[in-house]
Amino acid sequence: MVNLSQQALDRTFAALVDPTRRAILTRLESEESLSVSELARPFAIKLPAVMKHLDVLGEAGLIARSKSGRTVAVRLTPAPMRAAMEWLRRYERFWSVRLDRLGAFAEAQERKARKSQRRKPRP
Amino acid sequence: MVNLSQQALDRTFAALVDPTRRAILTRLESEESLSVSELARPFAIKLPAVMKHLDVLGEAGLIARSKSGRTVAVRLTPAPMRAAMEWLRRYERFWSVRLDRLGAFAEAQERKARKSQRRKPRP
Repeated sequence: MVNLSQQALDRTFAALVDPTRRAILTRLESEESLSVSELARPFAIKLPAVMKHLDVLGEAGLIARSKSGRTVAVRLTPAPMRAAMEWLRRYERFWSVRLDRLGAFAEAQERKARKSQRRKPRP
Repeated sequence: MVNLSQQALDRTFAALVDPTRRAILTRLESEESLSVSELARPFAIKLPAVMKHLDVLGEAGLIARSKSGRTVAVRLTPAPMRAAMEWLRRYERFWSVRLDRLGAFAEAQERKARKSQRRKPRP
């Protein structure tokens, strides 16, 4: 089980390495589904290259393809990204700790400012 | 700027593809710093292979190495993982939507249960 989930993580992260593949996922995020040619349109690369990227995304389980007649519809199946995000979430405390420290610093500064205000002699 | 941050994401995700590299990051998460040999100990692979993984992690900016005498201390520099997590966070709504629906379903069931309780004739 552990190895299977490790392999799934390998595939997910490998699929996310390429900026074109990330751009494909980003486009699919806002659309119910897109045809392969619609997906390929904004990219400078040729259709076969786009198809190869779709294969990688498909093998990682990040997209699903369905054929109707001549058109292949592509839609996002984002579930595997959840495990990738959970993996990264373990490191979130490093940013949050810094934010906590910043917050504590800001509060201390405010307390100081208030104290010095109180100390000022009234005119 | 966009390209630079895209390249940084490429490197971060590429560094995370390998399970040994992920295991190294996980170990460094709970330790202030570890020597290269301490890091290598639990892995079945040879030291030069570990060094190569450390190079990839170093190039991605995920670890920092400092030498004192013969010992190289390795520590986690997790900042680049934040951008990777932010990228993945865009897809979080797909899981949350499902959770929202589950929540709404649970609430509806509870309301139903309460209603049928009220309708029951008192003994």
